[in-house]
Amino acid sequence: MVQNILRADAAVIDSLAQSGVATVHEAQGRTGLLAHYMRPIYSGASVAGSAVTVQVTPGDNWMIHVAVEQCRPGDILVVAPTSACNDGYFGDLLATSVQARGVRALIIDAGVRDVATLTQMKFPVWSKCVFAQGTIKASLGAVNVPVICAAQRVEAGDVIVADDDGVVVVPRSSAAAVAEAVVKRTANEDDKRQRLAAGELGLDLYKMRDSLAKLGLKYV
Amino acid sequence: MVQNILRADAAVIDSLAQSGVATVHEAQGRTGLLAHYMRPIYSGASVAGSAVTVQVTPGDNWMIHVAVEQCRPGDILVVAPTSACNDGYFGDLLATSVQARGVRALIIDAGVRDVATLTQMKFPVWSKCVFAQGTIKASLGAVNVPVICAAQRVEAGDVIVADDDGVVVVPRSSAAAVAEAVVKRTANEDDKRQRLAAGELGLDLYKMRDSLAKLGLKYV
Amino acid sequence: MVQNILRADAAVIDSLAQSGVATVHEAQGRTGLLAHYMRPIYSGASVAGSAVTVQVTPGDNWMIHVAVEQCRPGDILVVAPTSACNDGYFGDLLATSVQARGVRALIIDAGVRDVATLTQMKFPVWSKCVFAQGTIKASLGAVNVPVICAAQRVEAGDVIVADDDGVVVVPRSSAAAVAEAVVKRTANEDDKRQRLAAGELGLDLYKMRDSLAKLGLKYV
Amino acid sequence: MVQNILRADAAVIDSLAQSGVATVHEAQGRTGLLAHYMRPIYSGASVAGSAVTVQVTPGDNWMIHVAVEQCRPGDILVVAPTSACNDGYFGDLLATSVQARGVRALIIDAGVRDVATLTQMKFPVWSKCVFAQGTIKASLGAVNVPVICAAQRVEAGDVIVADDDGVVVVPRSSAAAVAEAVVKRTANEDDKRQRLAAGELGLDLYKMRDSLAKLGLKYV
Amino acid sequence: MVQNILRADAAVIDSLAQSGVATVHEAQGRTGLLAHYMRPIYSGASVAGSAVTVQVTPGDNWMIHVAVEQCRPGDILVVAPTSACNDGYFGDLLATSVQARGVRALIIDAGVRDVATLTQMKFPVWSKCVFAQGTIKASLGAVNVPVICAAQRVEAGDVIVADDDGVVVVPRSSAAAVAEAVVKRTANEDDKRQRLAAGELGLDLYKMRDSLAKLGLKYV
Amino acid sequence: MVQNILRADAAVIDSLAQSGVATVHEAQGRTGLLAHYMRPIYSGASVAGSAVTVQVTPGDNWMIHVAVEQCRPGDILVVAPTSACNDGYFGDLLATSVQARGVRALIIDAGVRDVATLTQMKFPVWSKCVFAQGTIKASLGAVNVPVICAAQRVEAGDVIVADDDGVVVVPRSSAAAVAEAVVKRTANEDDKRQRLAAGELGLDLYKMRDSLAKLGLKYV
Repeated sequence: MVQNILRADAAVIDSLAQSGVATVHEAQGRTGLLAHYMRPIYSGASVAGSAVTVQVTPGDNWMIHVAVEQCRPGDILVVAPTSACNDGYFGDLLATSVQARGVRALIIDAGVRDVATLTQMKFPVWSKCVFAQGTIKASLGAVNVPVICAAQRVEAGDVIVADDDGVVVVPRSSAAAVAEAVVKRTANEDDKRQRLAAGELGLDLYKMRDSLAKLGLKYV
Repeated sequence: MVQNILRADAAVIDSLAQSGVATVHEAQGRTGLLAHYMRPIYSGASVAGSAVTVQVTPGDNWMIHVAVEQCRPGDILVVAPTSACNDGYFGDLLATSVQARGVRALIIDAGVRDVATLTQMKFPVWSKCVFAQGTIKASLGAVNVPVICAAQRVEAGDVIVADDDGVVVVPRSSAAAVAEAVVKRTANEDDKRQRLAAGELGLDLYKMRDSLAKLGLKYV
Repeated sequence: MVQNILRADAAVIDSLAQSGVATVHEAQGRTGLLAHYMRPIYSGASVAGSAVTVQVTPGDNWMIHVAVEQCRPGDILVVAPTSACNDGYFGDLLATSVQARGVRALIIDAGVRDVATLTQMKFPVWSKCVFAQGTIKASLGAVNVPVICAAQRVEAGDVIVADDDGVVVVPRSSAAAVAEAVVKRTANEDDKRQRLAAGELGLDLYKMRDSLAKLGLKYV
Repeated sequence: MVQNILRADAAVIDSLAQSGVATVHEAQGRTGLLAHYMRPIYSGASVAGSAVTVQVTPGDNWMIHVAVEQCRPGDILVVAPTSACNDGYFGDLLATSVQARGVRALIIDAGVRDVATLTQMKFPVWSKCVFAQGTIKASLGAVNVPVICAAQRVEAGDVIVADDDGVVVVPRSSAAAVAEAVVKRTANEDDKRQRLAAGELGLDLYKMRDSLAKLGLKYV
Repeated sequence: MVQNILRADAAVIDSLAQSGVATVHEAQGRTGLLAHYMRPIYSGASVAGSAVTVQVTPGDNWMIHVAVEQCRPGDILVVAPTSACNDGYFGDLLATSVQARGVRALIIDAGVRDVATLTQMKFPVWSKCVFAQGTIKASLGAVNVPVICAAQRVEAGDVIVADDDGVVVVPRSSAAAVAEAVVKRTANEDDKRQRLAAGELGLDLYKMRDSLAKLGLKYV
Repeated sequence: MVQNILRADAAVIDSLAQSGVATVHEAQGRTGLLAHYMRPIYSGASVAGSAVTVQVTPGDNWMIHVAVEQCRPGDILVVAPTSACNDGYFGDLLATSVQARGVRALIIDAGVRDVATLTQMKFPVWSKCVFAQGTIKASLGAVNVPVICAAQRVEAGDVIVADDDGVVVVPRSSAAAVAEAVVKRTANEDDKRQRLAAGELGLDLYKMRDSLAKLGLKYV
């Protein structure tokens, strides 16, 4: 149970929230994406926040209760079991509790339940599956230690960005730099979008014809 | 083809319908959940009804036609193939037929098709997948015998409860007792929800601090 | 890079678009369905068009840029990697470009990203998964050669029909015949639908009772 | 913890052991097969025995220790978690213990470990996977209650038959009848095998040509 | 039921048999590999032969019996269901029959059973899974038509090469050319193998250092 | 490309090699196991060594060639793609090269090929799958940076232990302590093994009866 964690600057987090997962992932060199099976329980949510990490054992959600006390407004819970599990570790009561503390979302490499209520509460969750299977409260785990969640390492205080495309983690130490890179990339993309919408071909816009010809592309 | 089956009391079924899958599953001791891959074809449906069970062979939906005749208002069709199959056993014509007989939903450990039409008809289906692959009508199966559907045994007349969290089966003989347990549990949960929403921690509400300390939880 | 491809008649394509995947699949003898894991990124889209096929290598979307130039209004891009890959080959910039050229949809046996934006743009995609993982532009592939996409062979100019049930391919040479078969089948189904809605049993409508009895079905 | 269970006759069990999974499955009307993912840890083992069933919670193998005391020579342990889990519930120490009590095999819808040692000990295991992940001893489960193991219901005392083809369960009450059916089937198969080995075609041996022609099979 | 099919030259087939799957796949431009889930039932088999293709419906192996009559010495049966199925379509009786006709192997995008006996018979099978689930004989399919088997199109008479690495299909028309390319490739590889065994680095042998440096590889 | 890495003491590595994966995993607090899908290409291999980590892009094995130069006798190559890929990154030529440099094994979260030859060479590989699909040499990756391989973080110089149970990673800094813990654990297990083999029950050996009774276990 690590209590005091460092968080990224709030302005940086908000800036990343506006960019979305695909752009942030590109801006940090195509790293940090959680596995593709992490899907939102409802469409349209888009958030960023500071990771409070929770390591749990299979079928046991006790440590999530412990972690709640460490959460501040703007945080995102990141829950990873020590071995693969689909059980429903989190439902509407826990959501009520963490929403009262200002938590923005849950990222869980396991199952979640009460999804109809969570949707009404507008509490977004990205999970491996939806499953009502209940969990027990018998084993210790750890809070705010580094965890491997859906194929990515997440440390407490890292920035989590999540939207309909999935979830990406940005290390706290590089969050400001990534936010800057995102701004540049977005400006660049807006220009391209207009030219492509006007009918210009990517082959010309990106000047690809020569390199394709050199590699031997033949038109038949 | 078993024709006369016993069903649970309608009031009990309606009571279970209002509680939802996660609560019913908890109230009966965390048993009865169908596998997590059973998902609704559209969000927001929530039903309960008496199981009419159908055992089919792979790629053959003939016995569903046989089962229709056994359905009464308030029933739910539960279809299980004898070996794993993703084919689309059920579409809008069968849905029209069973809806005309008052059937409330289909639970199928296989595929379903015509889902856009089924959604318009408000006929809810929980299935393993959506797949348009057609089936034939060549082999006998059985109706209203016990089946294994998505990892649970379902007998004809058992109560099926289904919502966005998945599907749970309640044995007919214990349905009344479970419905009572659900009422108690729900009252209890409402109180907790208010206290958690007011910011009280689960650690305090559930008096967990002592047992965590005894197990050796350390705050760093 | 094959440049000139034959396409089916526009009226035939439009006729198939109105029928939907399940009906077209039935009308051509239950063939041509892509694997059940091909799912739409949003519900409610229903399209038909001429396939422009793209063979790509894992993690490399260069050939999609090459293929854009070959697209005409009414086409549908069909992208197949040479070995299984979940990466996000296609996002909002490519969608902007192909939508400007009148492309109606993307079918991709891999991942797609920017799905929130694609949904706003009403550009439908059927894919194996949603994944923001970026791709590179380094390897040649092929355009308008026959590809195996999600367990079906697709040739350039074949007709693709896609809706909430999935995706079906109709060979260009048989498209007109299938469209005719669809019309007959649909008329036939409308009549059945009315009789079933009125409560007539499929057992009687399809005259199944005799053959069931011969096979030995017993009512207990 | 149910202590006294009925077992099938030893001669019946031995007779089933000699027949193998595929034959027993056929002889009881193509029922009772556990899911195809249940694979032996080494090739060549072929056993039958009486099921001692164990229901465990995810990641917790305590009840297996409880079950050991109930095992008699000729039994087979059948372990099923209440929700899906890949952890390694069973290793060489438990195998030493149950082998000392005459247990013939383990069937587990989860993981197993120490497989090199188990192979040396000639203690066969059919499992969902091999995984060294350790389990805890914290939760109660149940012994000798009916369980759903890999898609089949198994009751204590049912006969389990397992070989390189997988695992099949024969209800205790029908074991003698199935054993008889197996004998007939095997004699029948031996005759067919000789005729097929001599070059006779199945088309002729099974007299299929007429029915194929009636269904419309055409030779081109 | 197509009866007369063309086969590749026996010397070409034998030459491909000696090369193995990986080499043949490379020699024909990295095409033709069946999906990675196609695994041999025992290690060490390595074969090549002419494809006799069989299209079957789910859970129905009737057409395999029909296909047997079309098999000649040196052929390989290639069985593909019209929709995904894990059932055990093929066991020791069918193996006895086809082995009597000189068939060298079975490639099946579904399940197989009696694998202990097949191993003793030295009849190799590459399949999606091992599963004892029986099949029926009720539906027509097709023999010697093009099929999609494990993500590759196979035509009757194409050359199948299979070993511990999996299965590759070589189109009949290009088999001779591929066999020649294989010979060159193999000679080339032998030389490389000796130099690598002597300690020469691939970086030098393949002259990669310059291109890596150009792309920006840095040594830290 | 990080060139100079620290390795654990050779005696420590050899000591861990003798203990096996399950014991090492237990001795370090049940951490460090790679995902259960990592399986050996042949049974019976058991190794330990220092990790040389390689990050590759999908379908591109160039960086493995770069990594070879960094390998010393006693090392183990650990290869992780930046996004999921099943292609065969490694075959007999690379194995010849690394075996010449004293590399003990390959751990790869992707495919491998030429497995019959690798088995003859006694070069063990633990991989996600066997697949002959070839890869290209076009993209840079990284060598000896931390990678996520099959759900575990591995740093260059960490100790890898692999046997028939799978693969476990031991951080370099704690390798000596884990090796000591393993020795104690093993001594302890030998004593238990003898008592269990003599028929003593785990219930008594581990003194479980009281705690089970307190939790409410009932014998019926």
